[in-house]
Amino acid sequence: MPGNTFGHALRITTAGESHGPANVAILDGVPPGVPLAVEDLLVDLDRRRPGQSRIVTQRKESDTPQILSGVFEGVTTGTALAILIPNEDQRSRDYDEIKNLYRPGHADFTFDAKYGVRDYRGGGRSSARETNVRVAAGAVAKKILHHACGARVVGYVIQVGDIRANIPAPADVTLDAVEKLFDGSPNIVRCPDQAAAARMIELIDQVRKQQDSIGGVAEVVATGIPAGLGEPVFDKLKADLAKALLSLPAVMAFEYGAGFAVATSRGSENNDVFEPGDAGGAVRTRTNRHGGMLGGISSGMPIILRAAVKPTSSLPLEQQTVSSSGDAATIRTKGRHDPCLLPRFVPMAEAMVALVLADHLLRWKGQGALTPK
Amino acid sequence: MPGNTFGHALRITTAGESHGPANVAILDGVPPGVPLAVEDLLVDLDRRRPGQSRIVTQRKESDTPQILSGVFEGVTTGTALAILIPNEDQRSRDYDEIKNLYRPGHADFTFDAKYGVRDYRGGGRSSARETNVRVAAGAVAKKILHHACGARVVGYVIQVGDIRANIPAPADVTLDAVEKLFDGSPNIVRCPDQAAAARMIELIDQVRKQQDSIGGVAEVVATGIPAGLGEPVFDKLKADLAKALLSLPAVMAFEYGAGFAVATSRGSENNDVFEPGDAGGAVRTRTNRHGGMLGGISSGMPIILRAAVKPTSSLPLEQQTVSSSGDAATIRTKGRHDPCLLPRFVPMAEAMVALVLADHLLRWKGQGALTPK
Amino acid sequence: MPGNTFGHALRITTAGESHGPANVAILDGVPPGVPLAVEDLLVDLDRRRPGQSRIVTQRKESDTPQILSGVFEGVTTGTALAILIPNEDQRSRDYDEIKNLYRPGHADFTFDAKYGVRDYRGGGRSSARETNVRVAAGAVAKKILHHACGARVVGYVIQVGDIRANIPAPADVTLDAVEKLFDGSPNIVRCPDQAAAARMIELIDQVRKQQDSIGGVAEVVATGIPAGLGEPVFDKLKADLAKALLSLPAVMAFEYGAGFAVATSRGSENNDVFEPGDAGGAVRTRTNRHGGMLGGISSGMPIILRAAVKPTSSLPLEQQTVSSSGDAATIRTKGRHDPCLLPRFVPMAEAMVALVLADHLLRWKGQGALTPK
Amino acid sequence: MPGNTFGHALRITTAGESHGPANVAILDGVPPGVPLAVEDLLVDLDRRRPGQSRIVTQRKESDTPQILSGVFEGVTTGTALAILIPNEDQRSRDYDEIKNLYRPGHADFTFDAKYGVRDYRGGGRSSARETNVRVAAGAVAKKILHHACGARVVGYVIQVGDIRANIPAPADVTLDAVEKLFDGSPNIVRCPDQAAAARMIELIDQVRKQQDSIGGVAEVVATGIPAGLGEPVFDKLKADLAKALLSLPAVMAFEYGAGFAVATSRGSENNDVFEPGDAGGAVRTRTNRHGGMLGGISSGMPIILRAAVKPTSSLPLEQQTVSSSGDAATIRTKGRHDPCLLPRFVPMAEAMVALVLADHLLRWKGQGALTPK
Repeated sequence: MPGNTFGHALRITTAGESHGPANVAILDGVPPGVPLAVEDLLVDLDRRRPGQSRIVTQRKESDTPQILSGVFEGVTTGTALAILIPNEDQRSRDYDEIKNLYRPGHADFTFDAKYGVRDYRGGGRSSARETNVRVAAGAVAKKILHHACGARVVGYVIQVGDIRANIPAPADVTLDAVEKLFDGSPNIVRCPDQAAAARMIELIDQVRKQQDSIGGVAEVVATGIPAGLGEPVFDKLKADLAKALLSLPAVMAFEYGAGFAVATSRGSENNDVFEPGDAGGAVRTRTNRHGGMLGGISSGMPIILRAAVKPTSSLPLEQQTVSSSGDAATIRTKGRHDPCLLPRFVPMAEAMVALVLADHLLRWKGQGALTPK
Repeated sequence: MPGNTFGHALRITTAGESHGPANVAILDGVPPGVPLAVEDLLVDLDRRRPGQSRIVTQRKESDTPQILSGVFEGVTTGTALAILIPNEDQRSRDYDEIKNLYRPGHADFTFDAKYGVRDYRGGGRSSARETNVRVAAGAVAKKILHHACGARVVGYVIQVGDIRANIPAPADVTLDAVEKLFDGSPNIVRCPDQAAAARMIELIDQVRKQQDSIGGVAEVVATGIPAGLGEPVFDKLKADLAKALLSLPAVMAFEYGAGFAVATSRGSENNDVFEPGDAGGAVRTRTNRHGGMLGGISSGMPIILRAAVKPTSSLPLEQQTVSSSGDAATIRTKGRHDPCLLPRFVPMAEAMVALVLADHLLRWKGQGALTPK
Repeated sequence: MPGNTFGHALRITTAGESHGPANVAILDGVPPGVPLAVEDLLVDLDRRRPGQSRIVTQRKESDTPQILSGVFEGVTTGTALAILIPNEDQRSRDYDEIKNLYRPGHADFTFDAKYGVRDYRGGGRSSARETNVRVAAGAVAKKILHHACGARVVGYVIQVGDIRANIPAPADVTLDAVEKLFDGSPNIVRCPDQAAAARMIELIDQVRKQQDSIGGVAEVVATGIPAGLGEPVFDKLKADLAKALLSLPAVMAFEYGAGFAVATSRGSENNDVFEPGDAGGAVRTRTNRHGGMLGGISSGMPIILRAAVKPTSSLPLEQQTVSSSGDAATIRTKGRHDPCLLPRFVPMAEAMVALVLADHLLRWKGQGALTPK
Repeated sequence: MPGNTFGHALRITTAGESHGPANVAILDGVPPGVPLAVEDLLVDLDRRRPGQSRIVTQRKESDTPQILSGVFEGVTTGTALAILIPNEDQRSRDYDEIKNLYRPGHADFTFDAKYGVRDYRGGGRSSARETNVRVAAGAVAKKILHHACGARVVGYVIQVGDIRANIPAPADVTLDAVEKLFDGSPNIVRCPDQAAAARMIELIDQVRKQQDSIGGVAEVVATGIPAGLGEPVFDKLKADLAKALLSLPAVMAFEYGAGFAVATSRGSENNDVFEPGDAGGAVRTRTNRHGGMLGGISSGMPIILRAAVKPTSSLPLEQQTVSSSGDAATIRTKGRHDPCLLPRFVPMAEAMVALVLADHLLRWKGQGALTPK
C-alpha cells in the first residue's frame, strides 16, 4: 500500500513535488455544516510560508490555496475537499548540477534505491514543500475541532541549539503569544519565552552567516479535547500523534507529557493523582505528567507533545558525498534554505496534530455507545 | 474505525482481555512458503513471560500458543494465521475491590470515559497482557525478515533510572549477548553492558522492596534491512516505527539515530557523509546519526531506535484517587506487578519493530518497479 | 494488502481452514453496551449448519461458538470480539487421493497458481466452512442494527433451477415464514412461497439422486434502515453490498431493486415517484424499483437484494480434469456435499448484508453533522 | 470512514462536483518507470466526453486533463499522481428552480437525508461528472496492466432496451471493433454487433424524441490477466469487481461468466473442465462459464463481466415528486441529459475494471512468495 494517505474518519491524501505545477490535498470526511472559506487557510499558510522573515529560506512562494470542492455557500457539504496550491518559484536550474549527486542528509539516495528513478528538482516529492497542503488541511481540522468542542491546538519553539525556553504553563500559551512580541512586532522564531526568543534569533543569525544550520525542539499543546479519544490497542492517540509528527520531514524524536524523563522517575512520583473535578465537572488529575493521555486515550487534560527537528541538511558549505554511479564527489547545495527549520515547523506540527485529533474525534463519534431507538 | 488492526501488507488484528479465556491474533499477509512451527514462537514468548525472574511480575502464565490456521505441512500457506494464547492465571478476585476506583496512571478512567462500561479485571483490554499475541506474531515477522533478506531485529535495555549502559556498537549486539551473562547465566535485565546490568538489577531490587517502580529506556536495532523501505509521505518508515512503539503500553517517547540530540547539533556535524560501498557494494554512510533512515526510507545502514518506558503505575503503596462516582478515595493495587517493565518490554519492542519492517518489506515488494513482460 | 478483513467502522477479520482446528473471527468496532450472549449466535449458526436436513450436506458439525473477548457481564464493552468455532468432523482421508488433482469449478488450481502451496484438505481456506464465523459475526451485526434502529435483515430462497417463487411483498416476509411451513414443520429449503418450496425440495431430491447439483437465487430484504447510509463515491451502499455478497463462495451475480430488468425499461416507468410521508413522517417513494438506495445511499425504503448461486461444484460423478503436474486425469469428489447450496446460503447472505449495514450505520454516525458545543 | 478512496496497492481518491471549478483524482501506488504522458489519458476521456454524438448529452466539456505530479521526464516516478480536469460548462442557472425539489431517481433526497445540506447544481457530488477523473486514472491502470503483462480491458454495449447483441467471442472483441463501424465511421453506441448497433441507435433516437430514456447492459472483458489475482476471503477478485462496477452511477446489477444463468444449471453442465495447456503452457479450461475467476482468484482465462445500467433518471417530461419541505410538487429536469447512458458508460466501466485488476496485480506482487536471499 502506498503512503500518501493519512487518517481514517478524517482522511488526507496528498500529491505534488517541489518543482511541479502544484501540490494537492484531498481531505475526505469533513462533516457537513462547518463554516469554511479559503481565508481560513491563510493564517497558517502564512506562518509556514517561505520568505516570511530573515531567519527562514528566502524562496518566494505566496502559497495561495484554492478550494476546488466540498464547500458550497460558505459551509462544508460532507463531500471531499480538494485543496490546490500552485508552485510559483520553480528555479529548477539550481538543481541541475546536483542531479547525479546524493546530498548528505537528504532522501536522494533512498529515493533512488527505492524507485530507481527520481525527480531531482528540489528534492521532488521528498521536499518539505509538500507540507503546504498539510498545513491547509490542518487549518480545516482546527475548524472542525473548534466547531465541535471548542478545542484549540497551539505550537511553539522551545529549543534552538542549546537555548531552551522556559514555558511554565504550556496550556496557557496563546497563538498571539507565539506570533507576537510584547511590542506587537512579529515573533519570528515563534518562541513565547521572549528572552529565549531573542537569543535563539541571534544563534540562527550566527549559523546562517556561517553557512551552517541548527536543530531544535517544538512543543504542541491541545486544549479542550474531551476524554475518550484514541482507539486501543494499536491506534492509541499517542501512537497516531507520534506517527503524525514523525511523518514530517526532519523530525527525529517524539515525546509526550514527561517523555524521556520517565526513564529516571519512580511510579510513586510519576503517577498523576486523580481528583474530583469542579462542581458538576469531570474527573481531572492534579498534575499532567501523562500529557493528557492514559492507556492511549485522552484524559481531558491538556495534550502536550514535543518533537525534535534536525538541522537543515542542505548546506552551502562543501560536503563530501558520492554520485549516483557510486563515485566519491563533493557537493554544495546552492538552493535557498532555512538556517533553522523550527519557526516554519510550528504550523506543520500543529496541522498534523489537529488532523489526528479531528480524525479521532470523528472515530469516537462513530464508535461510541449507540442511542437505542 | 476501531483500532485493533495494524499494518497493511502484513496486518495483525488482535483481541482479548487480561482475565478472559484467551488472547488471539490474526496475522494476515504472511507470504506462502515460509517454514514455521509453533516452537518458533516460544523463544520470544518466554522472554516476555511473567514470572521469568525475580525482577518481573510473579504472575504465573505459561503463554503456550496455538497456531490455528495458515500453516500446513510445516510451511505457511499464504492464508491468514490465527494464533491463540489461553489465559491460565485469572485471579479476578484481586480486582473486585478496585472496580469502582480509578487507578492512577492506568486507563481505568479513560476507558470509562470512552465506552461507559469497562472490564475492570486486571485492566481488561488495557492490560499489557494483550502484548503476548503481538510477541507471537512478531516472531513470525522475524522469520519473514530472515527468510527474505537475512535481516534480524535485536533489542535490549540501555537505561534503568539513572543507570545508563554503554553500547559502543549497537549493530553488533547479538541476542545471546542480551540474554546471557559471560558465565552463561540468564541476563535477567537484558542489558548487554554487564556492568550496567548488575547495577540495574540492584536498583530494581531496591525499588521493589520499597513497593515502588522505576522507568527506563530500551534500544532496538535492525540489521540487514535493504535500502528502500518506507512509503512517502505519511507512511515513512520512521513514522510507522514510532507509531508501533508508542502503541505499546507505558511508552512515552521515541527517537531514532541521533534523536533528541539533533536539537543541539549543526548541519555540518549532523549530516552523515556518503561514501562508496565495498567493491560491488551499495552506497553507505560513514556515520549513522540518521539511524538508518533518510527521508523516511531505509538507507541500508542499521536501523536504531529507542523508546522510553514509564515506571509501572500499579503500586502496592497507598495512592490518592477518585471513584467512578467522582468521590475522593485511596487505593492500593494488590495484583502482582513488575517493579520495572523494561526486561519484559524488550521482546515486545522487537516484535513491533519486526512487524513494521516485514510489512514495509512486502509493501515495497508490491509497489516497486514492474518487470515488463 | 491481504484480503481477510472486511468493513471499516465495524470490521471483521477471519482465519481458518476446512480441516484445521478452528475458524476464528475478530469483530472490531462493536459499540459498547449492546446486550450479547453466546446464545445470540446460535440461531443463525443452526440455520447454516451442515446436516440440518436431507437436502444439505451430511457432514457433522455442531458449530458451537465461543466468545473469547469483548463481552463482560452480558454487554459488549467496545473492545474487539473474538469468536472461535472448533472444527469437529475432520475426515481428511476423503481428500488424500485428490490432493494432486484440480477439482473442476473449485479453487484448487487458482490457489496453486497464487500461492504455490495449498492445504488440499477439503479445500482448505477456499472451503465454505470459513463462512461459519461470518454468520456468527453477522448475528452480532443484526443485534447492533436492531439495538440502534429496530432494523432487521431477512433472506430467503426465491429460485431453484427453473422453479421461481412468487413473493408479492418482500418487506413483509418474516423469519418465521422463512423457517417454518404452515403446519409448523421446518421449511428446509427456506422459500416462503410454500407451493414453490415443495417443488424446489422435489427438484433438489431429484438432482441429489442423480449425483448432480442445482443452482438458484436468494433474496435478502432489510427493513427499518434509516435514510442516509452509504458513502459516495466509491463506498456506495449498493457497491459494498455487492462486494459483500460476491465475497461469498459460489455467488456469480448480484442485483438490487429492479436489477437487470432496468435494461429494458424506460426512465418514465423506472423512476420511483416521491410522495410525502405520513403525518410527521419522512419522504417516501410510491414504488421501490430503486431497492431502497438512490445515489448509493439508503432512501429509507426497504433494501432489496438478490444473489445467484451456482450449483455445487463438488460432484460424485466422474469429471475430466488435469493434475497439478499438468496431465489429463479424471476425478470423483467423494466428500459429503450439498446438492443445492441455497438453503444454507440464506444465513450467510443475511450475515454479510447485516455486517455491511451495521458498518455503514456506524460510519454515518461518525461522519454525520457535528453537534456544535 | 468516508468513501472517496478506492483500492489498496493502487489507490484512487477523488473529489469534485458537477458545477465546481474542477474534478481531481490522486492515484497513489503507480509503480515507477511506467511511460506516461497526458495524451495517454485522452482516448478514454474522449470516449466518455459529453457531446460526442447525437445520442448522448449535448453538454459541452472538453475534459482536458492536467497531470500535476508523479511523472518526470516521461515516466512515472513511483510518487502519487494528481490528475485535474477543469469544469468548463457550468450553467448553474438550469438548476435554480429545482433546488428545493427532489428529482425522482436521483440522489437529491438521500444526500439531504445524509448531510442536511446539498450542492444542488447538477447533482453536485452525485453527478456522473465525477467519473471523468476515474476514466483518466483508469487509463493509467490500463498502462500498468499492459506494461506488466500485456493485458487489455475492453468494454462494449450488449443490450439497449429489448435489443440484445450477439457477441460469439467476447475475448476477441477489439477496441477498434467497439469504436468503429465497418465503413470506418464512429460506432456511436459502442456495440460491436453492427446489426444490433443500428437498431440500438434507432431505439435511442426514438426515446430521445419521446423525451424519455432507456436502459441497457454493458459487457467488459479483460484478457492477458495471469492466474493468481484476488485475495481470499473478502477481497475476492469477483467481489472487488462487483463493487467497482456498482460504485458507478446508475448500475443496478452485476454478473460474471454465466451469471444469473447459473440458477437454472446443474453442476455437471456448469463446471468448466480443466485441460492441459499448450506445450509449456498453463492449465486452462475448455469452457469459460466461470468468467475467468475460481474461488475469487483469476484463472488465466478471460475475465468476463456484465453490468446493467438504468435509464437516465433526468427527464424533460413532467414528473410528480415532493419538495424538500415535504410537499407534493411536479418537476421537469431541464438540463441536457443522455437518452441512454450506455455509450458513455463503456469507458467508465473499463476504467473501474482496470483499476481493480491493476490493484490486485500489485497486491499479488507484494503478497506472493518471497525469493529467499
